[in-house]
This record gives sequence, C-alpha cells and structure tokens, in this order.
Amino acid sequence: MKKNNVENILNEPEIRENKRLVDETIQRLLPEKHSINEINLLYQMMKDYPSRPAKSLRSSVCLLTCQAYGGTIDKALITASSLDLFQNWILIHDDVEDQSELRRGGPALHHKYTIPLAINAGDALHGKMWSFLYHNRDILDDETTLLVINEFLNMLNETTEGQHMELSWVHENQWNIKQDDYLIMCKKKTAWYTCITPCRLGNLIATNTDLNKNDFVNFGEDLGIAFQIRDDILNLIAGTKYGKESAGDLIEGKRTLILIHLLESASTKDRENIENILGGNRQMREQNYKTILELIHKYNSLQFATEIADKFSHSALTEFDKIFDQLPDSRSKLLLRNITEYIVSRDW
Amino acid sequence: MKKNNVENILNEPEIRENKRLVDETIQRLLPEKHSINEINLLYQMMKDYPSRPAKSLRSSVCLLTCQAYGGTIDKALITASSLDLFQNWILIHDDVEDQSELRRGGPALHHKYTIPLAINAGDALHGKMWSFLYHNRDILDDETTLLVINEFLNMLNETTEGQHMELSWVHENQWNIKQDDYLIMCKKKTAWYTCITPCRLGNLIATNTDLNKNDFVNFGEDLGIAFQIRDDILNLIAGTKYGKESAGDLIEGKRTLILIHLLESASTKDRENIENILGGNRQMREQNYKTILELIHKYNSLQFATEIADKFSHSALTEFDKIFDQLPDSRSKLLLRNITEYIVSRDW
Repeated sequence: MKKNNVENILNEPEIRENKRLVDETIQRLLPEKHSINEINLLYQMMKDYPSRPAKSLRSSVCLLTCQAYGGTIDKALITASSLDLFQNWILIHDDVEDQSELRRGGPALHHKYTIPLAINAGDALHGKMWSFLYHNRDILDDETTLLVINEFLNMLNETTEGQHMELSWVHENQWNIKQDDYLIMCKKKTAWYTCITPCRLGNLIATNTDLNKNDFVNFGEDLGIAFQIRDDILNLIAGTKYGKESAGDLIEGKRTLILIHLLESASTKDRENIENILGGNRQMREQNYKTILELIHKYNSLQFATEIADKFSHSALTEFDKIFDQLPDSRSKLLLRNITEYIVSRDW
Repeated sequence: MKKNNVENILNEPEIRENKRLVDETIQRLLPEKHSINEINLLYQMMKDYPSRPAKSLRSSVCLLTCQAYGGTIDKALITASSLDLFQNWILIHDDVEDQSELRRGGPALHHKYTIPLAINAGDALHGKMWSFLYHNRDILDDETTLLVINEFLNMLNETTEGQHMELSWVHENQWNIKQDDYLIMCKKKTAWYTCITPCRLGNLIATNTDLNKNDFVNFGEDLGIAFQIRDDILNLIAGTKYGKESAGDLIEGKRTLILIHLLESASTKDRENIENILGGNRQMREQNYKTILELIHKYNSLQFATEIADKFSHSALTEFDKIFDQLPDSRSKLLLRNITEYIVSRDW
C-alpha cells in the first residue's frame, strides 16, 4: 500500500459512509428534547462531544472487522456507535481529571458548564452507552446482546485500571516508573478500548461464536501501544493542531515513555531540575515546560520513543497478517489493514 | 404497628440477615487484590463506601418485595446488591459535585484520595454494577437478566436527570423555583433509585412477568418525596448525627422545600438577605448559615415542609395498602409495610 493511500484512508467512501451511519445512530438514539429546560441542557451536554469533529477510529475498526469476517454493518452498527459513545463519556471525565482545557478544538465540557454538571453529564452518557447496548436486542439475539455487554465490561474494567495507574503516578508524585510499568498502563488505558475490544466485537457479531479470552489481544496491545506512544510524541510536537493544548501532557504532568527515557538518561543535576518542574504545581509546569522540551531534545528522548513505537508498529502489522491471512481477501480486509497502518504511523 | 416496632425494623432478624447477605455478595464480587500496587489502591477505593456503616434500605426493599410476591432471596440477591452498589458509586460522584466533606461518618472519598482518583473510582464501581447484573445470568434466564438491566437503565436515567436539575439550579444561581419543580426533581433524583426501582425489581424477579410502565410509580414517588423532604429537614436539625456535615445542604446551596417556602414567605428585605448569603460562595454560606436557620424558624418553613412530608407519607401508605392488599399476608409483607413506615417517618 502506498503511503498516500494510508494517509487518505479516512476519505475512502466506505469509511466515510460507516462514519456517517455511526454519527447518525448516535444522534438518533440520544435523547432529543425535554419540556423541562434544565433537562434539555443535560441533553445538549450529552450531545456536545459527539457533535465535535472526530475520526471515529474505534467504530471504524469494529465495523471493518465485522465485514472482514463476513458480517454486515447493520448487525454491528449499535455496537460500533456504543464504542464511540464510550470514548465520549470517558473523555468528559478524563478532561476533568486531567484539568484539560481543550477537546476537539473547543473548550472542555467542564469549562463550558462547570465541573459538577460535566461529571453528571458523563454519568448520564455512560448510562446511554449501556442503553444503546440494551437496544441491540432489536437486531441480535439475547445471548449475543449479553456477550457484547460482557466485552464492554472487560473494556471498561481495563480502561479504568489504566487510567487509575496514570493518575496515581501524577498524584503521588511518583517518578520511579519503568518502561514496563508504562507499557502495562498503555495496554490498559488505551489498547483495550482503541484496538482490542473493537476487533473482538466485530468478530463476535460477524461469526456469532463466543470469543476466546486472548483473541486479538496481542495484536491490539501492540497496536494500542504504538498508537499511544505516537500520541505522546505528537502531543509534544504538534502544537494545537489537533485540538488540544500544546505540550498539554507536560503541563498535566503525565508520565510518558519520553519522560521515562529522559529521567533514566539525564544527569543527576538535570534529573533534579526535571523533577522540580514536573513535580511542582500546574503553574510551575506551565511556566517551565520549555526547559523540559530542551532536555528531551538534549537526551534524544523523542528519538528513543519513536524507535520503540516503530518496533510495536512492526509487531502489530505482523500480528495483523497472522490473524487476517486466514480470511479471504476482501475490500474490508484491505481497508482494515490500511487503518491499522494509519493508526501505527499516525502523524495526524 | 406500634411505633417501637417501626423504629426497630432494621433490627428484625430477617432484615439483618438480608443485609448480611447483600454485604457479603458485594464484598465477594468486587475484586480483591491485584499484584500491581496502584490497581490494588483502586480496589480499596471501590470497597471504601460499601464498607462503611449503612442501612442498605434499597436492597432491603427489593428483597422484601421479591419475597412478598412469593420469590426467593437467592434469585434477587445480585440485583439487590447492585442497587446498593448504584448508591455507592453515585455517592462518590455526588460528593465531588456537591463538595461534600463527610460521608457515613468518614471523609468523602475525594478528600481521602483526590478528586481525579475519586471520579475514576466512581466510574470503575459504576462498571462493576453492570458487571454484577451481567452475573445474574448464573441464576436468571437471559431475558430476565436483560429486563433487570433495563430497569437499571431507567433508574440511572431518572437519577442523572434529577441530579442535573438540582445542580443546575445551584450553578445558575436560580432561586425562582416552585414547589412543583422541586417535586419533579425529588421524584427523579430520589424516588426512582430509593423506592420505585427496588420494588419493581423485586416484583419482576419474583413473578417473572414483564412490568407495566407505571407499576409502583405512584407509591414510590410519594414514598421518595416524603423521604427526601424529611432528609432535607434532618440535614438542618440533626447536626453531624448521621455522618454528614451539619446544615450541609445550606452550605452546598441546595434548593430544598424548606428554602422554597422560606423564599416565598419572606419579606422583600429578608429575601434579599437570603439570596445574598445563599447565592454567594461556599465560604459566604459557611459563615452565615445560622442567619438562614433563624429565618427558617421565623417563617415556620420547617413546619411547612413537615406538613407536606406528612401528606406524602400518608398517601404513600395508602398506595402501599392498595397494591399489597391483593397479596396474601406474609411476614415479608408485614416487614415491607414496616420499612415503608420507617422510611416515611424517618427521624434517624
């Protein structure tokens, strides 16, 4: 596949059509209007993030996997939409937890409406996700409906555990983090909801057979790790290009592979300086993050992280071929391969 | 029934045994230990509120309703435990939203562990609630498992809408609230999860027949309103007796029936004073809540609220008899009647 094709993957007509169907499903199944003004505002808040521009990668991966295994879009549509809804409600809470200011090019929901209203709207949207999955009864049998629910339970479990790991490092001012800790956190926080579960759900709905515990796990972990490391890199170099604060991770004090390498490589004096800045309060980090950027440059930590991301990218693509070579060639399989390449090579 | 019996209802051996089973189920189904220290901390946080002393009213109502309709405890145990779990995770988020300091006699979870960790632990516990309900598959058929899930979906929907109404009044500094607005908020925020849904679930599991939309709604609404108004009254007069801050509602700026009456009855000058204090920041309210207490006394607002609560209590008991007179007399029916009386007459 030519690089150009990978970059334009999201413009492929099938991908665009899938995204349109998912967006339409979300808007249709979320509540529209309420005669009580206050509740109407809650409904607006719930539709806020889902209405902002997004790539809908998770739903795409789910739908294409379903198709590659011979399933049809209509059977997987509510499930795929619920994956995007999962991302939306959890981002509302993440943004409060991380004190993020921007999301998808606009103010974070709690900046628009206050923290208490945003937490509650996240809970309400979380409820709607399960409500969508309950509506799978209209198109799937009860057993499959419940198996899909079980996949979401595992995904939520992994994601909240990963999120807890990351948050507790920040809040306990923990710097003694090894690369392996970071990789476990990545798998839990990112790989499950971005890669593993979308693939598993597409497969489950297409084949109607119960999944094994490890199906798609190796592939999805490698893909998720590559995705997260590149996300960390982009966060440092991309400015406000993709709708978040420039160097937002540094300002939030997040532990990334880049920082782990930096701390391991830095001289004692530099390390002390880094810990002082990052271990200070938000204002401290806002005022001094450029010093950290310079040290990242000095110790080649971006380059290190890129190499690790490349390693996991390569491994993810090898795993992909191992799994999907067993299936007949199809347009959806090709698109899924391209989306995988797009995810691991992301420079968007 | 003698008043003494109503007061001692929670000490009845059947009620104590039900509570013991529910507590044991929650502790057994929540995750125990994890080899990663950080995740172990998350598990501790999830078990924190469920381990504090609580009355477990919602699970009691569910189990007794199930028994009164001829069902057995074992079929309803996971569902009843999930009701208590619902209360636990939503209280974690409520305490952040309301900036509460105490819960069940100890510091609120976010005071013990920071706001970000508490929000995430609430999400993780929320996930466990659905996980419990998925485990109903072990004891119920798939259709009933899904119908139980649907009852939880409605309950969560109503509760988050009610919570949103209350929060938005505070955050928009809205004082022009009528008694009817308050009653709608009460039904949504309190009646569904405290009364309506516990009864509906007990009935559903016992009879294995699909519920009508309105089953137990009138009864549960009246009961929930009576309960909430008395909760508001107790919050003002009970000091720290039941594990929350004294006059916490005033300090949080909550709109209660007492305040609605006060604002409607007060002279222009007094009303201005009240709005200045309650519409100020938290510190303003902390320093001046005693002035509000004096005005509540001056305008007999507590007495007014008590009369309305009595009206709804009476109506709830009448509704109870209308519904349950159709059932044969039983020990569980008697206990449920006593618990209903206990809830509406609460001075605990």
